Amino acid sequence: MDFIATLRETWRTRSSLLCVGLDPDPARFPPSFAGKADAIFEFCRAIVDATADLVCAFKPQIAHFAARRAEYQLERLVAHIHARHPGVPVILDAKRGDIGSTASHYAEEAFARYGADAVTVNPYMGRDSVMPYLQWAGKGVILLCRTSNAGGDDLQNLEVGGEKLYERVARLVADEWNENGQCALVVGATYPAEIARVRALVGDMPLLVPGIGAQGGDIAATVAAGQTADGCGLMLNSSRAILYAGEGEDFADKARAAALATRDAINACRRG
Amino acid sequence: MDFIATLRETWRTRSSLLCVGLDPDPARFPPSFAGKADAIFEFCRAIVDATADLVCAFKPQIAHFAARRAEYQLERLVAHIHARHPGVPVILDAKRGDIGSTASHYAEEAFARYGADAVTVNPYMGRDSVMPYLQWAGKGVILLCRTSNAGGDDLQNLEVGGEKLYERVARLVADEWNENGQCALVVGATYPAEIARVRALVGDMPLLVPGIGAQGGDIAATVAAGQTADGCGLMLNSSRAILYAGEGEDFADKARAAALATRDAINACRRG
Repeated sequence: MDFIATLRETWRTRSSLLCVGLDPDPARFPPSFAGKADAIFEFCRAIVDATADLVCAFKPQIAHFAARRAEYQLERLVAHIHARHPGVPVILDAKRGDIGSTASHYAEEAFARYGADAVTVNPYMGRDSVMPYLQWAGKGVILLCRTSNAGGDDLQNLEVGGEKLYERVARLVADEWNENGQCALVVGATYPAEIARVRALVGDMPLLVPGIGAQGGDIAATVAAGQTADGCGLMLNSSRAILYAGEGEDFADKARAAALATRDAINACRRG
Repeated sequence: MDFIATLRETWRTRSSLLCVGLDPDPARFPPSFAGKADAIFEFCRAIVDATADLVCAFKPQIAHFAARRAEYQLERLVAHIHARHPGVPVILDAKRGDIGSTASHYAEEAFARYGADAVTVNPYMGRDSVMPYLQWAGKGVILLCRTSNAGGDDLQNLEVGGEKLYERVARLVADEWNENGQCALVVGATYPAEIARVRALVGDMPLLVPGIGAQGGDIAATVAAGQTADGCGLMLNSSRAILYAGEGEDFADKARAAALATRDAINACRRG
């Protein structure tokens, strides 16, 4: 699938800007999962099946799998999403970044091994560290721009020649790296004014926005700042607030209810 | 083991500043490895056993394992180094970077799962994205500062308030993030003048220097620019030029000869 084209189609047909982040934490799974060898896959599959019609994308976060030797469960999870929920793109949240010869291995990991439709990438090492991902036709490459954590200020808000470093990153990606229309940016919901600034710099490029839900970002301010003229342009990610909306065996129902409420709260703020 | 203390000890007792990077590429293994299920482990083990007395550290690069579903072989490799070559620290080259709650999972991956003594980390997301690694007492955290690739210029050389971004990163790490003496920096050998600039900013902090060997960095210029007053302070990494010094079944002997020549070439440039 072509990630960006699929995403735009999904925004229209599903009327959802919600991205559900899959950050599995076995300590928060309901009791029935205890001791199961494939608990991480089964938990995430239940979340996926309960919410797929409400989302524009799923975003598994690879550290949550890698810390627990659960790479194979991640492979199964992405395959399950593609098989059972065609048309819903999968973003592998990996934030990789390395020189070209190594980046090509990370691209292979994300796109060939896991079958992801897009991957998050760190821009600190520059253009040639990003090209190996872009060589995979149709795959999405989502560059970190302005992250949702407090420490993001340390570098991203530094002044570089009359603009902030994150603005320079946004311009580099929009004006130089996005030759084939595969790029998107990460901009945290904790800074709506900066979402608006990025939107002004990058036209209708998709923005992946973490930080609503558990991290406290404001949905109305985020949508107002980041939506495109047609009320799209955003993947608003929520992970923990949806995955752990319930603590009991009805966790999937609770997750669905939370996803529905979040999707609708987002839609209520969108341009008609 | 305490990474920084072990490294300083290794520099002295082994008289080597050479770090051998373990970037396994099965397409370049000798014919006898074809079809072996644990070829990656066996190849790397042979390199390690042939060169361990000549190095100050080993640096496995995780993408080369992850792209081929070889995580378990990486676990075995690190365990083998610790068991058979005690006192030689292992740096997991992963260049991770994410917000705190996720970074703690990456730290668990590097230090608990793989048993690495140090890990490379990307500074773009700032202080709170680095703290979860520093909470592992004695473990080393090696921040990207000035990388060896051409694209490193795109962000790292931008002017921020009278200095370059990579200089700001060096100062942030040295003056603010290194409270417990666990930090080191990555500075590419392709830019000796910038190694000297970083050395001037960070005192005797260890520098991991990729780019000698296949990437063409100049050893004499690198050592002159980066060594500390006692002729130490550097981990000069070479990967492909050592791993693939030979193409036949005598690859380990050829790797040893290449490592020996590189170590000695480095030592010939060091302060007495």
